[in-house]
Amino acid sequence: MENNNRSGNEQNGNSRPIGEETVAKQDSRMPVTIIGMGPMERALAGAFVKNGHLATVWNRSAGKTDALVKEGAVLADTIGGAVAASPLVIVCVLDYDAVQSILAPVGSELQGRTLVNLTADTPARAREMAAWAAGHGIDYLDGAIMTPTPSIGTPAASILYSGPESVYRNVQSALSSLGGTASYLGSDPGRAAAHDVALLDLFWTSMSGYVHALALAASEHISAKDFAVHARGIAAILPDIITGIADEADEGRYPGDASNLVSAEAGMAHIIHAAEHHGIDASVLSAARALARRAIDEGLGEDGFGRLAELLSRRSGA
Amino acid sequence: MENNNRSGNEQNGNSRPIGEETVAKQDSRMPVTIIGMGPMERALAGAFVKNGHLATVWNRSAGKTDALVKEGAVLADTIGGAVAASPLVIVCVLDYDAVQSILAPVGSELQGRTLVNLTADTPARAREMAAWAAGHGIDYLDGAIMTPTPSIGTPAASILYSGPESVYRNVQSALSSLGGTASYLGSDPGRAAAHDVALLDLFWTSMSGYVHALALAASEHISAKDFAVHARGIAAILPDIITGIADEADEGRYPGDASNLVSAEAGMAHIIHAAEHHGIDASVLSAARALARRAIDEGLGEDGFGRLAELLSRRSGA
Repeated sequence: MENNNRSGNEQNGNSRPIGEETVAKQDSRMPVTIIGMGPMERALAGAFVKNGHLATVWNRSAGKTDALVKEGAVLADTIGGAVAASPLVIVCVLDYDAVQSILAPVGSELQGRTLVNLTADTPARAREMAAWAAGHGIDYLDGAIMTPTPSIGTPAASILYSGPESVYRNVQSALSSLGGTASYLGSDPGRAAAHDVALLDLFWTSMSGYVHALALAASEHISAKDFAVHARGIAAILPDIITGIADEADEGRYPGDASNLVSAEAGMAHIIHAAEHHGIDASVLSAARALARRAIDEGLGEDGFGRLAELLSRRSGA
Repeated sequence: MENNNRSGNEQNGNSRPIGEETVAKQDSRMPVTIIGMGPMERALAGAFVKNGHLATVWNRSAGKTDALVKEGAVLADTIGGAVAASPLVIVCVLDYDAVQSILAPVGSELQGRTLVNLTADTPARAREMAAWAAGHGIDYLDGAIMTPTPSIGTPAASILYSGPESVYRNVQSALSSLGGTASYLGSDPGRAAAHDVALLDLFWTSMSGYVHALALAASEHISAKDFAVHARGIAAILPDIITGIADEADEGRYPGDASNLVSAEAGMAHIIHAAEHHGIDASVLSAARALARRAIDEGLGEDGFGRLAELLSRRSGA
């Protein structure tokens, strides 16, 4: 992930002594078991195989493992055999219910091993899973993959991890085979999921805005390809705005000199009006506008848009 | 705007003969009148002054024009005097109602001049305004400023224009004093506003997602500054996804091989669950999720997220 200043690799610095490099090389060939064989899990296994790890794979249903086995991965017959094959076990399946149903029967086989759970779910469930792992003597890390499947094993990959630091350091080198940026976020096992959920909140809301914008553009006979050229320009101005609002949020001051909630709400009203004129559902932006209106009704109309973050937090009692 | 391949400047190419360059230089000193004196309009007037134009400014209420006049702008006493001062008149005020109330009394003074309306509103209102201008013998361009106030006069500025091409070519050189990228979108006067509305749809929906994500991060004790580092990474992956979905939309095929609506809806459910767990309003994402659910209920769950653009368009009968 761009501008990520917490790269696990960077933290090793340039001053790594030769002894540690040797350890790193040994670590990088740590046998790894990967549970789950969807497109993402095959990409994970493939990256380990390419980086010289003995990779054992397993899936509940007959998976598409032929290509991986051809490349050198070992297909385990049973979940018990899969877990027993490696000191590092990575699980990435549909949700935590699936993780539990797969791993509950092999809790004792996992004892003393490191389990890295890259399945996406809420922070609360990550903490529950960490508690279960602790109860079975399993070293546990929770992780979140922030980039699409094709990024795995390339510099574009970005994966977040949280859990005990000593556990992370033990497998950090092996995990570097997944490529890109590994970000260690701290000992709270829920912290990677907390980032994941909030980042996906931004992602899916933005994506909803994009498909709606495409529909609105189509209603005005603008082709998606033409529109995308300009939409990329909107994406390009977001990073600076993201940083600017974050600075305001941490200071608790939201000056609306350049753009305030009153003008934002007026802008949203124009968009909703244009959408409804073409019979296009505008429920997403209408909900966003209602929030801005609540802030204006509370006398916050002259503040910048970032004030809404505080308004939402305040209502949660955070 | 990044990746904008329709720059008006580029369209002149490198083969411009010397005679045209002379014309361009004359154009670049075309006297300009700017109506409206908010922060954006002051930035517009300042950019014209800096580029050697005689700039006349006017505002309905006493504006903050002292600094501009010191730099060389002329403050007109009346709207009639302001319009009479220049062959090119730029108006940028709160909305089209304000434009109409300011310009209706001086329709005859505007005859034979070029009016560029940079006020934001819907495509339908831009077309109404163009019809009014045509009825008064006024050359009319409608425009939309896509970048924040500080970008004006710098390479970062991006402004969209639409209206008769001959009118645009006559003032193109003068408008280049505003800096950055000028995009001419065609003769339909509503086309700039159509782009504007759809691009702001993406922008405000994304911004709503960001403030919500900040609230969610705060509820998990993640500082805004820490979160912004990762949120910038999400913004960084959007451009490729924007282009990818646009390609699908123009082809009408939305393969969900890498990520489909079922998994997107499950992801949104996790986020809504996490938000509500912390008492944070989740109405925006809930509306987005409801749309995904409608698509799934229609049997489109295995399709990619871009299918929602078509679903929204279909419901509008477009």
